[in-house]
Amino acid sequence: MKTPVTVLGLGAMGTALARAFLAAGHPTTVWNRTPGRSPELDVVRAATAGEAIAASPLVVVCLLVDDTVRSTLDGIDLTGKTIVNLTNSTPDQARATAERVTAAGAQYVGGGIMAVPAMIGGPAAFIFYSGVPEAFEEHRAALSVLARPEYVGTDPGLAALHDIALLSAMYGMFGGAQHALALIGTENLPAEPFTERFLLPWLTAMLGSLPRIAKDLDNGPSDTAGSNLAMQAAAFDNLTDTSNAQGIDPMLLEPMGTLLRKAVAAGRGDADLAALVGLLRTPAG
Amino acid sequence: MKTPVTVLGLGAMGTALARAFLAAGHPTTVWNRTPGRSPELDVVRAATAGEAIAASPLVVVCLLVDDTVRSTLDGIDLTGKTIVNLTNSTPDQARATAERVTAAGAQYVGGGIMAVPAMIGGPAAFIFYSGVPEAFEEHRAALSVLARPEYVGTDPGLAALHDIALLSAMYGMFGGAQHALALIGTENLPAEPFTERFLLPWLTAMLGSLPRIAKDLDNGPSDTAGSNLAMQAAAFDNLTDTSNAQGIDPMLLEPMGTLLRKAVAAGRGDADLAALVGLLRTPAG
Ligand SMILES: NC(=O)c1ccc[n+]([C@@H]2O[C@H](COP(=O)([O-])OP(=O)(O)OC[C@H]3O[C@@H](n4cnc5c(N)ncnc54)[C@H](OP(=O)(O)O)[C@@H]3O)[C@@H](O)[C@H]2O)c1
Ligand SMILES: NC(=O)c1ccc[n+]([C@@H]2O[C@H](COP(=O)([O-])OP(=O)(O)OC[C@H]3O[C@@H](n4cnc5c(N)ncnc54)[C@H](OP(=O)(O)O)[C@@H]3O)[C@@H](O)[C@H]2O)c1
Repeated sequence: MKTPVTVLGLGAMGTALARAFLAAGHPTTVWNRTPGRSPELDVVRAATAGEAIAASPLVVVCLLVDDTVRSTLDGIDLTGKTIVNLTNSTPDQARATAERVTAAGAQYVGGGIMAVPAMIGGPAAFIFYSGVPEAFEEHRAALSVLARPEYVGTDPGLAALHDIALLSAMYGMFGGAQHALALIGTENLPAEPFTERFLLPWLTAMLGSLPRIAKDLDNGPSDTAGSNLAMQAAAFDNLTDTSNAQGIDPMLLEPMGTLLRKAVAAGRGDADLAALVGLLRTPAG
Repeated sequence: MKTPVTVLGLGAMGTALARAFLAAGHPTTVWNRTPGRSPELDVVRAATAGEAIAASPLVVVCLLVDDTVRSTLDGIDLTGKTIVNLTNSTPDQARATAERVTAAGAQYVGGGIMAVPAMIGGPAAFIFYSGVPEAFEEHRAALSVLARPEYVGTDPGLAALHDIALLSAMYGMFGGAQHALALIGTENLPAEPFTERFLLPWLTAMLGSLPRIAKDLDNGPSDTAGSNLAMQAAAFDNLTDTSNAQGIDPMLLEPMGTLLRKAVAAGRGDADLAALVGLLRTPAG
């Protein structure tokens, strides 16, 4: 028999996780604060989180925020369980939850889901995991039905750090795209053809610059790629001026202008984009 | 014989443009404010911008900023010339330059280069053009040696608007990636494997959300994609908290948090990312 699994939380993501376990033949028990969510799922529904946890050795938690995870698990005997927490967390929250869960007798694995619900079970989804390596390995096969597992270390906060890093990158990309679509909209140009013909090919091409930035960070700056920061800072004013003239708030872009000007003022006008990464470090950092 | 071409400006980009014209067999004349740049190019070097312009019917201008273009062309007889201005400009600057150039007897085509210098002449590069359609068509073949031409309309400012929109998207993406790499660096994790294994696949997958956002903008919101803004706003605090805890300034990300909270406060917590685009419009816009 496949490992019985419990899923706590039947929001959009918890529902997708439970559906993937079911589809792979895992006996699946669920609990959700508000009863009756996702009625189409053919799962065992427990009345309390404690009952749900008692049903399976592997417990996957996917609630809205991490302090809810701690309050939900509070006072429940977790002896012998593996708790895989896929709720979005900070590294510090993950470590605090790991401590509580461990004290209650369980092995803790933290996770960060790199997918939207529709991607769960599909080829592009992956999930970061960190925490007790034996617990992760024991349940690797079961967890693999959700998404490709990427185990990144024993520190329970490391999966969260990777998750937060990639979400940062995503929000940057979305913010830039939203600004672009807002600008295009001011001339009543439809968004779909602009996106298919120009925005996607351009961003795909520019993704090709990231390995070079990464290389410069690891090995120190190489030759300039022909797009020095002084030129970029000079052109950046055109972005904010154009936005203002078209009635679009440049709020999402302005900090990049600030950073470019800071780099030029610090004598890094000849440098490449990798030089901006170091400028994000705070004196305390 | 192929159309003789003049290139004004031998910075990183002007040099790449002149090299591509040369490689395609166009007689190429260049002028640069500072003499002696890019000595490896086997071109005719004119002593003044006026001499350079006199040499060819097609004049491509690629200087640092647009007001320099106007001052450089000032007082020169442009009768019968086609001026293709590939200097980064705002739509208003492009329109002002078009007016001046037209008054001096030339036909104006504005452009926006969607490439770094190394991409010129390669398959992924494209250039937006707008302005006098006959002038563009007359020189389409010559301009095609630089990059795939994308003509977007007769308004000389439209190429600049498209250019600025895509640059906005690029800076959003770069900013997010820089933040991600800064975070990863705080745990002394090397940037290259993180970029290849996680950052690129993730951003590539998330680009897949853009057509849906565009569709919602054109046709109005469809069903939620399972990642509602209320959930995103709740998770966003984890991004800023994690950044602060790791000693990374969340400056590039904070405005997105502001926008997400604004959307939730405006009762759009159930909506999707497309709803943020409208929130960028200023009351004047
Ligand atoms: N959706 C995505 O695209 C996505 C992607 C990656 C990661 N995630 C992460 O996955 C987690 C769940 O997201 P989601 O999209 O499923 O959110 P959602 O659809 O809003 O669902 C939220 C879930 O949390 C539960 N919950 C909220 N407050 C609670 C409390 N005080 N006590 C107990 N349960 C509580 C809700 O229960 P009720 O039904 O009783 O309200 C519901 O099951 C979040 O941490 C999110 O950041 C989501
Ligand atoms: N490089 C890229 O990745 C890229 C991509 C797309 C678009 N662009 C755009 O292409 C244009 C050129 O960029 P670039 O990378 O070639 O910049 P660059 O390497 O810094 O070169 C700047 C050019 O502008 C000239 N210039 C500056 N101020 C001048 C003035 N007052 N009078 C006359 N000439 C002046 C410089 O001449 P001197 O040699 O005398 O200083 C040089 O030829 C910019 O508008 C940029 O935004 C660049």
